Amino acid sequence: MLCGLGDDCAVVRLDSPILVTTDVLVEGVHFRRGWGTPRQLGRKVFAVNASDIAAMGGRPFYALIDLRAPLKFPLRDLENIYRGFRGAAARHGVVLVGGNTSRAPQLSVAATLLGRARGGYVTRDQCRTGDDLYVTGSLGLAAMGMLALRAGRKADAAVRRFLEPPSRVGLAQTLVRTGLLGGMIDVSDGLLSDLDHLCTASRVGAVVEAARIPLAQAYRQARGRDIRLALTGGEDYELLFSARPTFSRLVARLSSTFRCPVTRIGRIAAPRQGIRLLAPDGRHLPLPVGGHDHFRVGGRRRPTHKKPQ
Amino acid sequence: MLCGLGDDCAVVRLDSPILVTTDVLVEGVHFRRGWGTPRQLGRKVFAVNASDIAAMGGRPFYALIDLRAPLKFPLRDLENIYRGFRGAAARHGVVLVGGNTSRAPQLSVAATLLGRARGGYVTRDQCRTGDDLYVTGSLGLAAMGMLALRAGRKADAAVRRFLEPPSRVGLAQTLVRTGLLGGMIDVSDGLLSDLDHLCTASRVGAVVEAARIPLAQAYRQARGRDIRLALTGGEDYELLFSARPTFSRLVARLSSTFRCPVTRIGRIAAPRQGIRLLAPDGRHLPLPVGGHDHFRVGGRRRPTHKKPQ
Repeated sequence: MLCGLGDDCAVVRLDSPILVTTDVLVEGVHFRRGWGTPRQLGRKVFAVNASDIAAMGGRPFYALIDLRAPLKFPLRDLENIYRGFRGAAARHGVVLVGGNTSRAPQLSVAATLLGRARGGYVTRDQCRTGDDLYVTGSLGLAAMGMLALRAGRKADAAVRRFLEPPSRVGLAQTLVRTGLLGGMIDVSDGLLSDLDHLCTASRVGAVVEAARIPLAQAYRQARGRDIRLALTGGEDYELLFSARPTFSRLVARLSSTFRCPVTRIGRIAAPRQGIRLLAPDGRHLPLPVGGHDHFRVGGRRRPTHKKPQ
Repeated sequence: MLCGLGDDCAVVRLDSPILVTTDVLVEGVHFRRGWGTPRQLGRKVFAVNASDIAAMGGRPFYALIDLRAPLKFPLRDLENIYRGFRGAAARHGVVLVGGNTSRAPQLSVAATLLGRARGGYVTRDQCRTGDDLYVTGSLGLAAMGMLALRAGRKADAAVRRFLEPPSRVGLAQTLVRTGLLGGMIDVSDGLLSDLDHLCTASRVGAVVEAARIPLAQAYRQARGRDIRLALTGGEDYELLFSARPTFSRLVARLSSTFRCPVTRIGRIAAPRQGIRLLAPDGRHLPLPVGGHDHFRVGGRRRPTHKKPQ
C-alpha cells in the first residue's frame, strides 16, 4: 500500500490480472441485530467477499469497507464491526486501505476486495460435458443456523456456521493450480441455484446424486436424510466446481492438506439434460434450469446476492 | 476488462499505482426520492466517486456499482439509475465491470472506482507554507440547490448544480502534470471542512480571503455577499489545492483550456495560525482547525462523507 486511510483514494500496487468484487450484508435482509456479535458481523462481511475471490482461484490483497448505521447506533459496536473485519482481513494478509462510513436508516456493512490470481483464474463458463462435479465442505448447515436464529435459538453448530463462514481461499488457489478445473463458483445462493448459474454460464447440464451431497453431523442429527436445505439453503460459501476425471486422484490429498472434505456430487452433462437430481431412491427429479425459486424453503426469505445483468 | 458482469469477480488489467475509492448516496441522508430523476442519481454517484479519483490527479478506468432498494421499488427506476451510472462512466471511458444488487429498506447507490495516476498522484499532506491556495469552479451553489430542494423548489441553476456535480478529472490530471502542486482534496464536505482536512494532513495553517471565494452568478443573485454557504455548504465537488507561487502564471491558460475558473483564494500559512478567514471588511475571523461543525448551516443536515480512521 502506498497511501491508505485518510486521503481521497487509497493507492495500491497490484499486478494484473486484478480480481475485484463487492458484496454487502444489510440488517433486516441478511441478518438481524443481536444474531451475532459486531465482530462476527465484520468477519462475515470479509468472508463473504473473500469467498468471491476464492471462487475464481484468487487471493485477496486489499480491502475497502463501507459501513452505514443510524446516528444512534452505538459507536463501540461500529468499532467492533470494523475490528472484526480488519482482523479477518489481517489473517488473510489483506490490508484495509480505505472505505466510507455514512449515516443510514439501517445498519449495513459492505466491502470491496481487490485480489490477484497469480496462477490463472477460473470462471463459471468452463464446465465441460464429462467433467465431474465437486463441492467443498458440507452444505445446508448455515441455512439451518439461520432458521435457528429466526426461531430465537443462538448457540449451536449451525448458528456458528451461519455466523462464521469458512474460508476456502487457500484451497481454491491450489485447485486452480492443478490445471484440471472446469468452471467454479461459490455456493452463496444455495447449491441448485449456484449450479444453475454455473450450468447457464457454461451452457451445460448437470446430474447431482442426492446421496453424495456432503452433510455435516449436526445437519444429519437434526434433519436425517432431508436434503432440501442442503440443496437450496444458501450461505454455505463452499466451492462448487467441475474438474476433469483425473482430478479424482488428487481429492484425498487435497482434502487432507486443507482439512476440508472435497466431494464428488455428480457430473456435468449435455445441455439438453438441464439440471437433474438423482434421488436417494434412484428416481430422477427433473429440475428446470433457471428455476431456483422453485426450491425456496418455506418461510425462509433468501438473501439476495445477485449481480446486475 | 478480461471478465466482467456475471462471474464471482471482475477481472481487469490496470498498471500500478492503482487508485481505489468508494462512496455512497443514501435516500433520506444524501437525497430524497423525487429530487432528481433516477438517471441523475446514477450519474451523481459516478461523479461523487470520480471526484475522489480526480482529487488525487488520477483517471478512473473501472467501476463497480452497489444498488440497494426495497422490494417494491420500481424496476424501471432501478434500471435508469444503473443506466445513468453506466452512461456517466462511459463518457469518462470507464467500464462497469461488476457490482451487487440487494434488497434493503432504503434506496441507496454506492460505487467503487479503480483508477490510475499515470503522471504521479497528489495526496493531502503535501501543502507547504508559502504555497498559494486555489479552488476550481465556484462554491456554495450545490448547497443552495439542496436547500431549494428541501423547500420544495425544483428547476433552477442551484438545483441542477446539486443534482449534477461537475467533473474535474481532466483538469486535475493536468494540474498534477505541472509539477507545481502541493496538496489536493475535493470539496465535498464544504470549503472550510475540507481545508481543515488538507491543513491537518499537511500540518500547516491557511489564510482564506473571503472576497476571493468564487461564487456563481445564481449564488450572488440569491445571496449577495453572504458567503456562508460557499464556506460550509458542501457537495461542490470542486478541487481545492495548494501550489507553488510560480503556478500563478499557468492559471489563465488552464482556466481557458478547461473552461473552468481556477481561483487563488488564499495561501498556506504556518501551522500555529490554524485556518483564518480574512473577511471582506478586513477583519480576521479566527476559525478553529477541526471545528467544521461550527460552520453548520442552520437547518441543513450535512451529508456524512467520512473515511474510517
